Amino acid sequence: MFSVQPIGYVRSPYKDAREIPRGLGTKHNADGVLEVRQELELGLTDIEGFSHLFVIWVFDRSEGSELLGTPPSDSRPHGVFATRSPKRPNPIGLTVVELLRREGPRLLVRGVDMLDQTPILDIKPYLSNVSQEHLKRGWLAEAEARTHP
Amino acid sequence: MFSVQPIGYVRSPYKDAREIPRGLGTKHNADGVLEVRQELELGLTDIEGFSHLFVIWVFDRSEGSELLGTPPSDSRPHGVFATRSPKRPNPIGLTVVELLRREGPRLLVRGVDMLDQTPILDIKPYLSNVSQEHLKRGWLAEAEARTHP
Repeated sequence: MFSVQPIGYVRSPYKDAREIPRGLGTKHNADGVLEVRQELELGLTDIEGFSHLFVIWVFDRSEGSELLGTPPSDSRPHGVFATRSPKRPNPIGLTVVELLRREGPRLLVRGVDMLDQTPILDIKPYLSNVSQEHLKRGWLAEAEARTHP
Repeated sequence: MFSVQPIGYVRSPYKDAREIPRGLGTKHNADGVLEVRQELELGLTDIEGFSHLFVIWVFDRSEGSELLGTPPSDSRPHGVFATRSPKRPNPIGLTVVELLRREGPRLLVRGVDMLDQTPILDIKPYLSNVSQEHLKRGWLAEAEARTHP
């Protein structure tokens, strides 16, 4: 067992999970703020140079875990590790956001899909893409093909 | 505080942190295995369709946290949240690996940069790239430019 504690919290327009856009073709363009704890502000030095960040966070209002579930983007069940379901063995979320601006310990970002007040565990720079021609997107690509053949 | 527990462990060729390639231009091509706990195997259903995965893991042999540090790829210090340093407030690592093959609860992958026996917290599908023309890589791009002007 490992213990982790929030380095800060997300400010997001979403107060309820039902407000978060989901399903095939969803684009996450909502603006939000990553509010890092004041005493950790030094850890943000030079982050302004990166256009995109990984945010690792906690699904703190999700309960239980299911190994097989049907995501909003498909009508068929898939394994939890092949989806972004909140009902995971460890309720950890991962989101790529675009960094718009930094104001001291606050990072103004675009692309939040977390609830307001979501605890943040870590922030890392997004350094490189996977080579696009080698990227395969499994059941998601299949579900898209069935919907828009 | 949140508690997390490993969903499995990484098998990697690296037994010691000094063996892991680091610094500018490093490519991580080492093959390894993500060994998921047997009772969670159902959670891997349909993962074979994805070419790349996010692995969220624990720096279990790293100690302490420093808000400012000099990474192996530069001669200048940067904030911990602008680097992949192991000395983080929460010692959580994130690696993108290429999925080569699945054998039951074992995922054979390429691109491990973790130590052997590293605890895995989560596995998620890699779904999409950031648009390449908007990607900015801050101090890392500057360090590369200084080294290979």
